[in-house]
Amino acid sequence: MSQQPNSEGPEADEWSPSASAKAKRATLNPDLTVSEIEHGKRPGDVYVRKVRHHSHEFRRVGAGHFIATAESDVATHPLEKFYRALKRVLVGERLESAEEAHQRLNKLKALAVFGSDAISSSAYATESSLIILMVAGNAALGISFFTALAIAVILSIVAFSYRQTVHAYPHGGGSYNVSRENLGQIPGLIAAAALMIDYVLTVAVSIVAGAAAVTSALFASGYAAQLQTLDALLPPFFNLNVLLSLFFIGLITLGNLRGIRESGSIFAVPTYLFIISLSAMLIVGLFKAFTGTLTPADAPPILAVKEPITLWLILRAFSAGAVAMSGTEAISNGVPAFEKPESKNAATTLTVMATLLGVFFLGVSYLATQMGLVPGAETIISQIARAVFGTNAFYYIFQIATMGILVIAGNTAFADFPRLASVLARDNFLPHQFLFRGDRLAFTTGIVALGAIAALLVIGFEGKVDSLIHLYAVGVFLSFALSNSGMVVHWWRTRGAHWQTSLIVNGIGAALTTIILIIVAITKFEEGAWIVILLIPIVVGILELIHRHYSRVAQQLRIEAGETIPMTVNQLVLVPIDDINHASLRAIAFARTITREMVVVHVSTSAERADKVKHKVEKYAPDARLIILDSPYRAFVRPLLKYIDAVHSQQPDAFVTIVLPEFITAHWWEKFLHNRTAGRLRDEFERHPNVAVVLVPFLLEH
Amino acid sequence: MSQQPNSEGPEADEWSPSASAKAKRATLNPDLTVSEIEHGKRPGDVYVRKVRHHSHEFRRVGAGHFIATAESDVATHPLEKFYRALKRVLVGERLESAEEAHQRLNKLKALAVFGSDAISSSAYATESSLIILMVAGNAALGISFFTALAIAVILSIVAFSYRQTVHAYPHGGGSYNVSRENLGQIPGLIAAAALMIDYVLTVAVSIVAGAAAVTSALFASGYAAQLQTLDALLPPFFNLNVLLSLFFIGLITLGNLRGIRESGSIFAVPTYLFIISLSAMLIVGLFKAFTGTLTPADAPPILAVKEPITLWLILRAFSAGAVAMSGTEAISNGVPAFEKPESKNAATTLTVMATLLGVFFLGVSYLATQMGLVPGAETIISQIARAVFGTNAFYYIFQIATMGILVIAGNTAFADFPRLASVLARDNFLPHQFLFRGDRLAFTTGIVALGAIAALLVIGFEGKVDSLIHLYAVGVFLSFALSNSGMVVHWWRTRGAHWQTSLIVNGIGAALTTIILIIVAITKFEEGAWIVILLIPIVVGILELIHRHYSRVAQQLRIEAGETIPMTVNQLVLVPIDDINHASLRAIAFARTITREMVVVHVSTSAERADKVKHKVEKYAPDARLIILDSPYRAFVRPLLKYIDAVHSQQPDAFVTIVLPEFITAHWWEKFLHNRTAGRLRDEFERHPNVAVVLVPFLLEH
Repeated sequence: MSQQPNSEGPEADEWSPSASAKAKRATLNPDLTVSEIEHGKRPGDVYVRKVRHHSHEFRRVGAGHFIATAESDVATHPLEKFYRALKRVLVGERLESAEEAHQRLNKLKALAVFGSDAISSSAYATESSLIILMVAGNAALGISFFTALAIAVILSIVAFSYRQTVHAYPHGGGSYNVSRENLGQIPGLIAAAALMIDYVLTVAVSIVAGAAAVTSALFASGYAAQLQTLDALLPPFFNLNVLLSLFFIGLITLGNLRGIRESGSIFAVPTYLFIISLSAMLIVGLFKAFTGTLTPADAPPILAVKEPITLWLILRAFSAGAVAMSGTEAISNGVPAFEKPESKNAATTLTVMATLLGVFFLGVSYLATQMGLVPGAETIISQIARAVFGTNAFYYIFQIATMGILVIAGNTAFADFPRLASVLARDNFLPHQFLFRGDRLAFTTGIVALGAIAALLVIGFEGKVDSLIHLYAVGVFLSFALSNSGMVVHWWRTRGAHWQTSLIVNGIGAALTTIILIIVAITKFEEGAWIVILLIPIVVGILELIHRHYSRVAQQLRIEAGETIPMTVNQLVLVPIDDINHASLRAIAFARTITREMVVVHVSTSAERADKVKHKVEKYAPDARLIILDSPYRAFVRPLLKYIDAVHSQQPDAFVTIVLPEFITAHWWEKFLHNRTAGRLRDEFERHPNVAVVLVPFLLEH
Repeated sequence: MSQQPNSEGPEADEWSPSASAKAKRATLNPDLTVSEIEHGKRPGDVYVRKVRHHSHEFRRVGAGHFIATAESDVATHPLEKFYRALKRVLVGERLESAEEAHQRLNKLKALAVFGSDAISSSAYATESSLIILMVAGNAALGISFFTALAIAVILSIVAFSYRQTVHAYPHGGGSYNVSRENLGQIPGLIAAAALMIDYVLTVAVSIVAGAAAVTSALFASGYAAQLQTLDALLPPFFNLNVLLSLFFIGLITLGNLRGIRESGSIFAVPTYLFIISLSAMLIVGLFKAFTGTLTPADAPPILAVKEPITLWLILRAFSAGAVAMSGTEAISNGVPAFEKPESKNAATTLTVMATLLGVFFLGVSYLATQMGLVPGAETIISQIARAVFGTNAFYYIFQIATMGILVIAGNTAFADFPRLASVLARDNFLPHQFLFRGDRLAFTTGIVALGAIAALLVIGFEGKVDSLIHLYAVGVFLSFALSNSGMVVHWWRTRGAHWQTSLIVNGIGAALTTIILIIVAITKFEEGAWIVILLIPIVVGILELIHRHYSRVAQQLRIEAGETIPMTVNQLVLVPIDDINHASLRAIAFARTITREMVVVHVSTSAERADKVKHKVEKYAPDARLIILDSPYRAFVRPLLKYIDAVHSQQPDAFVTIVLPEFITAHWWEKFLHNRTAGRLRDEFERHPNVAVVLVPFLLEH
């Protein structure tokens, strides 16, 4: 009775005593259902009892099949708990994969989601032209209206050609897709590189321009001196514009990590506020202009004429203004997000968007040149608004609307970039990390990468729109040109109905955008376009390199039909020990469990000790083969490494398994009291293809 | 024939064909002697041939017993090769353990080796007193001669008491030994802490004073303005004195890492140069003083009287001068290094040393007060030398000799500190790393630690002797007091011949040094002694903590007589896989080799994929048990961790072995293209007492 306690007690049906080795073997049941072993107080008393499976962490749906519940992903470390809690507040509760929503956008919302980038560029494009023309004096500023006119004409042609893409590629006709499919892999990668660079610049330029709307309003309200003082206080590369931009980037990054389910509605507010208030400004402004009552709030300064008006200058002004066209291709990427009929709705939205952009850009340029406004600490568009409305509530609403649409425009890239990156990752051109969807089903890596690069760019260019803008248009027109060329090939290949017309439209688009690409690249080269021109082949090279790596890996991992796979490995188990004690005997017990022939190795710096170790090994591990390595130079790790190499050289494709005892100390500082031999050996063999290092832990209790 | 190529060819006696599994098992021979397997070109062709053992790396001295040759420790990585080559140049060729030399020193050399610390303090002790007295005006400076006289008397008593220690402890009677043996563990540790702090300060003070000899000579030669310019150019905490000191510390550290075999002769030159030149200076100086022709090179400045002469001021001047006595105990530590009869020779050397120190200190103090010299940018001893010799070759030789002996004095601590640290490490009070002898048989850790701490101290105190010196004397007198008290207990316990006399001598020594310790601690408290007073209990606490840790470890590792040690571990082998491919099948083959029951775990984020994996596992690893964990939140690592925890909870003392495939990429950047799952799992289980993680490498070829 006393030998088998409880065997006939009240819990007899729940408990059954067992001490056989067989019962012990079965104790760790991977299916988590059957039994749990409990040891009695006396040695040999072992109980098997049925236990609940871990239902709070895993739901068992069948033999060997579990679903991890939210519980199974609960953090345990306090620091991690805090991080998780913070993340939950910022990013929101996690979503299950099954919750992925496929919300469709109506035209109104789609214009907000996909059009904000293009429409918002009317807030800074005029100014970019004017800054170039300033060197030729106040009279030259008027030229900007004519460059704006030229750009508006080109915009209409490009928009028209994109309407065709939208119809031809209802599942999304981004430059990368269209170029890769029709022109080949390298043009596709060039388009991808151009697009990625462009998305980063979209974020940087839009956000910085959005921040400029705020600082301009402050400037207009008489805080010029305070702004200067603040800038002087901040470290180099930082000013209020940079700080505001970083704040906006952080906000958008977090917003996107939360996922963009409610995006349509959120985006609609600032976009339409901007459309309405800019329209109002243009109407009132044009009315005032025709009645001759439009005068600048502050008289524009007289500019010194430093250069004559040359064709070169005009082309540069044109190139600077051409940034207005960025974002035109956004809709062609997002056709599947439209309500049915997708292509038709997308095409209509595209037309509306291009029209709004053209009208806004021309209107702003007209009013600016009409008043002879000169760019300065206050943006041109803010100057116009003040001249039209006066420095009152209307003006502030307009500035807020400008800021709002620019921030929303930056947000567009946060949807596009991670999506493109995930497509590239799927095609093995980017690390597969870009494929991973985070807690809220957003592409975490792409979002964070975009936010980080844009933030660096903003800091590097000190939050100045006119510096960043020089980098901008090259990528835009490169992807236009590639996309249109791709479409030409597409029409030529498919030759459906009216293919000739379509081919001609896209052909004109391709030719025009190529010419502008060349103009932009040349005229902006010195001021910054060279960076992008240099960067594109580098990015393409990296994409190619990654692709090659993944292809090689896939090839090496692939199991060919009929291939024979070795069932076991030919292994030699080595146990390096310093002494025989509980820790090393535990390692030896582990080694004995995994092999029948183990070799114990002792690196000796003292013959006396080696003798002692030898006797102890003979006593406690008589089945082990002992090798003693005398180390006259007191080195430990390297002779052992060389010995393992020597053993290995007998048959390089055999496996050497090194079993090492390792202390786990109760306090962090205690680990400095033990040499790191185990860790060092593991590091040494980290890259060895036929050596596995097993650290057998030994817990040093407190 | 064609099936067994070469079996009867010309090399038949060397080659024997074999393809049996048994031959394969024996391929990795840990004894490196018997055979090497070679595979033929056709599958199944396996050859066994006798091979040379790796005679260049290992000399085989018996079955399972090798001696690692110097070859076995040859570096392979280019960076490591460079490091080794640099080390060889700086530190010298490695020495075998057997080459440890036991050089004995004659009295002349011993005075240089052990006496330089004490004798050299005559170069700065007078100045320390004068700096304190300056606040009471020029007239007060004369007091320093009387404090020097008092110190000289105390020195003679302390030296006399140490002569007894030398006789009683012929194997080395350091404070730590004597205190621990006679007073107990805590007093021993207090002495050890005091000594360690003292050794660090010996290095810092001596080296800084040595550097001051150089800067003083520059100052005296008219480079005052240049020195100021240089200091202005250097960053805060740095000046020429600091740079010179760091150079000297680096030099000594390297020298000590080389080993100090030729030390006796090297040390003799600067020590005797100083003894001779200082003697010459004193003789000429005293002669000039008595003939009334001794005048300062530059007239001493008139000092403002800021404080009256009080007992407190005199005691402070006394305490400042008491640093002269540092290093007096060095000989008692080093008795075994003397030629026979060790104790007698050591005692004689001790007497000579103390006499020289006393005479030098008094002489310098007399000449300084005689001329009314005032400390400034130039050291007092440099001022005296210029007054005595004039600013000529004699003066420069004297400065060089001063610099030389001070650097050598710093070197003394580099022999003492690592030796004490190794004794403490042997007694389990310091990390065992301090026991390790480097390439040249020197205690690498102790030497490097001392050099680093001293360097930080020099920088922290901006290379100023008079700041450092405030920290100095407390440790010195604390160890004097403990050592003498220990000797009192020793005589009382042993009661040999003349024990009463000996007890009285050490008793007077103990009383006197205790009184001075109290005076020094109080008078220097505010200026820096508080740091040392605070530090000593902290150091003792750390030593105790380390001791406790090692004791606990030893206790937990110790195998008790009659204890039963488990022969094997009860393990469950888990193989987490993402897919079935060559890499995961290799991990599965490894798992199959080490267990009969393995469990393959697939964390699934897609039911479709899970199905595919299931079919592949059934096909390629039918013997494995498959567990599928659905992860609806796309997490991978944590559900796996929780699953392993759940399995483990069934029997916490059973062993879970996790076998993971891990890619080894050809280029460093490629590893960023693969997720770090394997590494992350290993890190997660790093501190788990019953989980071993085996990474089965899979080489991704280029």
